[in-house]
Amino acid sequence: MTHPLEPMLRPQSVAIIGASNTPSRIGGRPINAMKNAGYKGEIYPVNPNYETIQGLPAYASIKDVPKGVDCAIIAVAANVAVQTLRDCADQGVKSAVMFTSGFAEQSDDGARAQREITDIAKESGMKIIGPNCLGVFNISAGWYGTFSNAPAASLLPPGPIGIVSQSGAYGAHVFTVSQLRGVGSNYWVTTGNESDVDVAEVIEYYAQNPEVKVILAYAEGMKNADRVCRALEMARDAEKPVIFMKVGKTDAGAAAAASHTASLAGADAVYDALFKQYGVYRAETTEEFVDIAYACQFGKYPKGRKIDLQTISGGVGVQMADASVKYGLDVAPLPMATQKKLKELIPFAGVNNPVDFTAQALNDPKLMEANIEMTIEEADFDSHIVYVAGVPASPFTRDACREIFSNIRKKYPDEVMMMSLIGPQDIVEPFEKLNMPCFEDPSLTVRAMAALTHFGEVFARGRPDSPPKLSADVLPAPTEPIAEHEAKKVLKSIGVPVTREELVQSAEDAVKVWHGIGGAVVMKIASPDILHKTEIGGVLLKLNSEKEVAEGYETLIERAKKAKPDAKIEGVIVAEMVSGGVETVMGVVCDPVFGPAVMFGLGGVFVEVLKDVTFRLAPFGVDEAHRMIDEIQGRAMLDGVRGAPPSDLNALAEALSRLSVYAADNADKIETIDVNPFIVLPEGAVAVDALIVPKGKV
Amino acid sequence: MTHPLEPMLRPQSVAIIGASNTPSRIGGRPINAMKNAGYKGEIYPVNPNYETIQGLPAYASIKDVPKGVDCAIIAVAANVAVQTLRDCADQGVKSAVMFTSGFAEQSDDGARAQREITDIAKESGMKIIGPNCLGVFNISAGWYGTFSNAPAASLLPPGPIGIVSQSGAYGAHVFTVSQLRGVGSNYWVTTGNESDVDVAEVIEYYAQNPEVKVILAYAEGMKNADRVCRALEMARDAEKPVIFMKVGKTDAGAAAAASHTASLAGADAVYDALFKQYGVYRAETTEEFVDIAYACQFGKYPKGRKIDLQTISGGVGVQMADASVKYGLDVAPLPMATQKKLKELIPFAGVNNPVDFTAQALNDPKLMEANIEMTIEEADFDSHIVYVAGVPASPFTRDACREIFSNIRKKYPDEVMMMSLIGPQDIVEPFEKLNMPCFEDPSLTVRAMAALTHFGEVFARGRPDSPPKLSADVLPAPTEPIAEHEAKKVLKSIGVPVTREELVQSAEDAVKVWHGIGGAVVMKIASPDILHKTEIGGVLLKLNSEKEVAEGYETLIERAKKAKPDAKIEGVIVAEMVSGGVETVMGVVCDPVFGPAVMFGLGGVFVEVLKDVTFRLAPFGVDEAHRMIDEIQGRAMLDGVRGAPPSDLNALAEALSRLSVYAADNADKIETIDVNPFIVLPEGAVAVDALIVPKGKV
Repeated sequence: MTHPLEPMLRPQSVAIIGASNTPSRIGGRPINAMKNAGYKGEIYPVNPNYETIQGLPAYASIKDVPKGVDCAIIAVAANVAVQTLRDCADQGVKSAVMFTSGFAEQSDDGARAQREITDIAKESGMKIIGPNCLGVFNISAGWYGTFSNAPAASLLPPGPIGIVSQSGAYGAHVFTVSQLRGVGSNYWVTTGNESDVDVAEVIEYYAQNPEVKVILAYAEGMKNADRVCRALEMARDAEKPVIFMKVGKTDAGAAAAASHTASLAGADAVYDALFKQYGVYRAETTEEFVDIAYACQFGKYPKGRKIDLQTISGGVGVQMADASVKYGLDVAPLPMATQKKLKELIPFAGVNNPVDFTAQALNDPKLMEANIEMTIEEADFDSHIVYVAGVPASPFTRDACREIFSNIRKKYPDEVMMMSLIGPQDIVEPFEKLNMPCFEDPSLTVRAMAALTHFGEVFARGRPDSPPKLSADVLPAPTEPIAEHEAKKVLKSIGVPVTREELVQSAEDAVKVWHGIGGAVVMKIASPDILHKTEIGGVLLKLNSEKEVAEGYETLIERAKKAKPDAKIEGVIVAEMVSGGVETVMGVVCDPVFGPAVMFGLGGVFVEVLKDVTFRLAPFGVDEAHRMIDEIQGRAMLDGVRGAPPSDLNALAEALSRLSVYAADNADKIETIDVNPFIVLPEGAVAVDALIVPKGKV
Repeated sequence: MTHPLEPMLRPQSVAIIGASNTPSRIGGRPINAMKNAGYKGEIYPVNPNYETIQGLPAYASIKDVPKGVDCAIIAVAANVAVQTLRDCADQGVKSAVMFTSGFAEQSDDGARAQREITDIAKESGMKIIGPNCLGVFNISAGWYGTFSNAPAASLLPPGPIGIVSQSGAYGAHVFTVSQLRGVGSNYWVTTGNESDVDVAEVIEYYAQNPEVKVILAYAEGMKNADRVCRALEMARDAEKPVIFMKVGKTDAGAAAAASHTASLAGADAVYDALFKQYGVYRAETTEEFVDIAYACQFGKYPKGRKIDLQTISGGVGVQMADASVKYGLDVAPLPMATQKKLKELIPFAGVNNPVDFTAQALNDPKLMEANIEMTIEEADFDSHIVYVAGVPASPFTRDACREIFSNIRKKYPDEVMMMSLIGPQDIVEPFEKLNMPCFEDPSLTVRAMAALTHFGEVFARGRPDSPPKLSADVLPAPTEPIAEHEAKKVLKSIGVPVTREELVQSAEDAVKVWHGIGGAVVMKIASPDILHKTEIGGVLLKLNSEKEVAEGYETLIERAKKAKPDAKIEGVIVAEMVSGGVETVMGVVCDPVFGPAVMFGLGGVFVEVLKDVTFRLAPFGVDEAHRMIDEIQGRAMLDGVRGAPPSDLNALAEALSRLSVYAADNADKIETIDVNPFIVLPEGAVAVDALIVPKGKV
């Protein structure tokens, strides 16, 4: 099936409405660019004031143009733009690129007009990009539906990178920088106000277009969660890395984002969750954005984290080892036998890893070849970085370097290898042609290899594991906020373990429950009108005899009546005392765009002071839950500190994923869930307190 | 006074021992380079086999060369190199650059030979750099005491950057990258095995050389703490930024460093302390290293953290705001009146900060000028970044951009301004000439501005405050490990507050002490033979009556005798109960290179799981202690969380600085001190337990 964006991104015929005879004007630039690029399709300039435009026959109106145009560029004033679009739709134009600005970014009237555009797209099925966008281009097709100067920055043949940016200015910036960096793109799309087509839909298009192998996306916010998730899923299934820059991480940033676009920016933590869930690489700077794309365009992804570092400078070896640890790669030592043989080759070499072949390699470059080949043959690394500084640029060693690496690549074409070297483009190119990405900065070479390793893991993992199935007895979502005992009943019904406890209405029953539990109990007053129980002395700990329990019951009822005579008292909860274990916190929040997301963190200072929490969109399976657990800073707590036994991570992961399924099943009913504390024991785990708040009841 | 490195780095006459007639050979390269560069001093090639070398009269031996040569290059084999050095010393040669390798980096014999070199330097006063180094150069003097290819990478006129690198290969790499980045250096020094001159001494030289304004230093480890501290102090006093790359941060990195050099690398935390203390900027990647140097060479440092962000793209404004928060800058809003006026200028502009002058500026670039000038006039920012993407490169707006910024700089030459733009060097240069550093990446522009702001603060702060004076009654350092009561006596004597407590030998005295304290007390068994008191029930809490205290005494003595019949029992400690406050940890460690360093962190999981601690070299004053306190991740704990009152930071800072003075005064006697916990109260603070271990008794 043809993707709906096909007519917009690979059009056979295009109309330029508001065409200009002057090549430098907005309505003239696309025609000029297409003519220069040898665009093969039909070009229909539309402007009632001219017979011909830039040498092409002009049409007075889109109504005069032959029917079935693939794409119309709308470069007319805002006050006539909407009607023009309607005319296009009536003429069966399949898609439109709207340069025109003055819509939602400008005023309430503009926002209204923009909603009309959205309606036209929906009603007619015509795909519309913009308004207020810089347009699109497809270099190999010679299609320039843009008035950006960016195409003038083209230095490279079309390549496998697809760029999509909500911001036109930044999209142009990225294209220019990426051309300078040697990143070959072919498709470039800016989405502007996103009345119809958004960044997600373009990602989806790239995911299914075989010409695109790597996706570079920039957005300030996203509005259609389903489309985003589907697009990222498609990209992952097609093993196409998505590198995303999503700005507005901090409050200062988010405030600026809100003033800039008409976007509804979801909370940043939820974007982080989304990106982690779909294996997207989130870049923080333009340089990182483009650098990772550069590495990905070579299309090779390591199968694991074991990295081999080879270097001509010991100091740089140290730097790369530091960076490897920082980026989570494993600088595994070489086998002892190999180390011994390497020592024989170069007596003063470092042979553990990094392998430092020393300045000796300047005298005898063939030593590098022997070193690297032996490492590949005898050790089992997933990736290799070779730091050679300016050696391949020196006239004394240039040819030898080329020959050495050409030999190595002939023998080992499938090893994932990068070079860190410094030299002009003609020095770098032969190594790139050997399928070795080249970087100047040794630490950033490691960062790029870590990114490729990330994608290797994501692609190997494939589709996520299925979320668990909840039993048929799950309790319905509450219609009023419920806490403590009632909330834990819900958790229990979805398979999240809770403290053994009962609500009793007499001292006698309290004693019975205590007998049933068989050990010390906690007793708490149960009243919807008493939220802060401890403040009225409404919690008693460690009760462990008939007398204590019976008296405890009376004490609690008495205190409650005294503190709040009007309170509705439901009784007293008698619950097992939980001792030991690690306090954690699970929660559900509801993002306006992405719906329910599950939070996980450690209790106490970890969540309150350090905000050491992580999120995932609901629902997810236990494997994903395990990845959440591994992400938090205080992770070591769960391994057991100060002689404590390790926590039952499986029980924790199971609870997180079950909570996520419940949250997803009740996405339209539940606003928040707090399970705090959720104590993870050496065996099992248990929710000690909980609160569930339905939508509209916050 | 002339610096001892003057003859090495600005020599009037040089001898090349092991000179070669072939310009490409190691012993030929310096002569060839100096001749090409028009070196003005005398060049004496030394080689017994030639009459002339590269057209210059050759000498058979250094003994035949006129006396008082400023610098001799040693390019002879290792087996004759030491004797050659001796000959140089005898001839009154003032300094030597030793290319020769095969010393400490190679073998034990080599290390022995290297010690001889150190001795020659000491005895003769001749300064020696190397062996196993790539040499030095000084471009403006035409002095090339190097066989590196790096000088061939020169693209720029000599500038204010001084480079010093322990590693020759990396030093060459940095020079090449920095030339490409537009960083003008003049001096370049590689120190190799550092038999005499080390990185610190070169920093000291740069600090006092008026030609050098910015210092770029690279090292794997440093051995002479006094020299390092003195050099960094001189640089700071001279307001010269030091940008340092010190590798070997992680275990993997440090292992590689140890195999590479003969350096004794101090623990990385201590280097971090050193750098923080002297205001050094620690770079993590080559790109950062060079980028910050680039920004510094313009010589303007903001006076505060308030940053004004101006942008032609809203999205990039968000990015820069995010980055500003990340790097600790303050994206303060513009005054409301100014916002209103800006809105009048550009109706759809973002005016809060970032100021987004939108694509309107493409139509009318003068709007930028008005916008920026109004912001400078009416608001009070310390620095400005203007993001203009490719606008200055477009033929339509190029001239207008130049004029606008030229006008702005004429009116406001002292504002600290940077540009983020993209274009070839001829586009960038006019802005650089207006004293505006230019960056492609908007986020990295912010990083660079944050670095300049850091230096602005360091230079404004100047010399650190004096450490406090301890009273004359300070107890001497112990000769055996002391804990608890004895250790707290020491702390008390240096002015660190401790729990009120006494050691008693009878129940009667215990009761007296309880009366004196006037509230609940803690009682603990005091015995050098019982280290883990709680295990034998040797600690009793919350005793608050004559009976409890008297019985408590007997109980503790009884338990101790029962648990350890042979234990020497000193008595029982009766101490005030400390309640509330925040648990912190103070400590002293002794680094083999840098001596005592004081550690600070929060107690509990912060120190045990998160390793959230920071260090400073002892001694330091209370201002430095406050900076330590502000650095830890869990800092918010001290402001009071969950309604707790804020902690007494002055008491904490005072204690840290007093501890540092004691540690420094007893640097040769004390190995470690632990004060754990040190509880910081809303008013005051108190050490609850402590341990002091003298040297040699670990």
